Amino acid sequence: MTTVNERLAWRYATKKFDATRSLAAETLERIVEAVRLAPTSSGLQPFELFVVSNADIRAKIRAVAWDQAQVTDCSHLLIFAAWDDITADRVNMMFDLTNDVRGFKNEGWENYRQMLLGIVAQRGTEANYQAAARQAYIGLGAAVIAAAFEEVDATPMEGFDPEAVDAILGLKAKHLRSVVMLPLGYRATEGDWLANLKKVRRSRDNFVTDID
Amino acid sequence: MTTVNERLAWRYATKKFDATRSLAAETLERIVEAVRLAPTSSGLQPFELFVVSNADIRAKIRAVAWDQAQVTDCSHLLIFAAWDDITADRVNMMFDLTNDVRGFKNEGWENYRQMLLGIVAQRGTEANYQAAARQAYIGLGAAVIAAAFEEVDATPMEGFDPEAVDAILGLKAKHLRSVVMLPLGYRATEGDWLANLKKVRRSRDNFVTDID
Repeated sequence: MTTVNERLAWRYATKKFDATRSLAAETLERIVEAVRLAPTSSGLQPFELFVVSNADIRAKIRAVAWDQAQVTDCSHLLIFAAWDDITADRVNMMFDLTNDVRGFKNEGWENYRQMLLGIVAQRGTEANYQAAARQAYIGLGAAVIAAAFEEVDATPMEGFDPEAVDAILGLKAKHLRSVVMLPLGYRATEGDWLANLKKVRRSRDNFVTDID
Repeated sequence: MTTVNERLAWRYATKKFDATRSLAAETLERIVEAVRLAPTSSGLQPFELFVVSNADIRAKIRAVAWDQAQVTDCSHLLIFAAWDDITADRVNMMFDLTNDVRGFKNEGWENYRQMLLGIVAQRGTEANYQAAARQAYIGLGAAVIAAAFEEVDATPMEGFDPEAVDAILGLKAKHLRSVVMLPLGYRATEGDWLANLKKVRRSRDNFVTDID
């Protein structure tokens, strides 16, 4: 069986996509589903996922993303947009959904709701947004691994003007802020300077501390 | 073959671990390796991983983590600690390592180094820390999925006092800040209130927007 670490070793931040190849709908859906299933703090899922195939929108985004060709050459562009605040309405929406799905109310869970409502009210908008943005990166990690299992290439990308992307997608009105993008597609057979270079990571000694 | 989405459906935020069971060393190493291989922005890996099996240290951490039993009942406690700043030294360390591993210097890469040095100097300590903390969550996502493939249970955990954990682990002197923890182990056969409850996620319609 192919392992997670074999898939992580296979993948790389693809610099040149084959613009003629698209993901099959069911392949794309499995990657999107991995993002939807990814865990988040208190189960809030404090972000949304935009799946952009529209060429005009992608051209506009490329213009505010350092002209990176992957934005338009990829098959589908995923954009992770975090809640701009963790409001009481949003917390209640997820706790109510939980009660609906599980079919009962639970005192411990309701106490936890009240505690969490207190925390987010006290923490303030900017800290809530930062907390939400972190959760989006769990989804990004899941998308990268899910894509690698599908032999789909992906390029995590922070090199763009978030406010400009928010304007292109109308995110402000939805109380969302773009945090990271992930072009999905298939690597070109030629012209990718990174494709054949060694992956670079710090050694275990320089990355991990064991406290036994 | 088992799929990523099957493993994501299997996992849950384990509330009660079997304190008598430990991960085999090679199982733990595969999960740690997934974190090490996870992608990060500009390849900086701006965080470190602490693997805590020591019982005294875990008892101290539990005391500043809302007394959550998973901290001491799990087999190994992973702690993700982000760089407290993205300094020029740290950027240069990773760019130099890249040149060492690949065996050559490249003008484009050196230009990118200079641009990134400019960005992190201009952005300031707090924004650099926030950016680093986000990257740690990619590693967290990788660890959760890698654990699920190993049939190892894991509980992403933000409910702790980061400054207290930093003090217990001596992170300040290392210019690190704890951001999220992940107890790893095996679920108890009884006594976990969450084990048999349905997983709750927003529907695709309430989470994903297609822009075709």
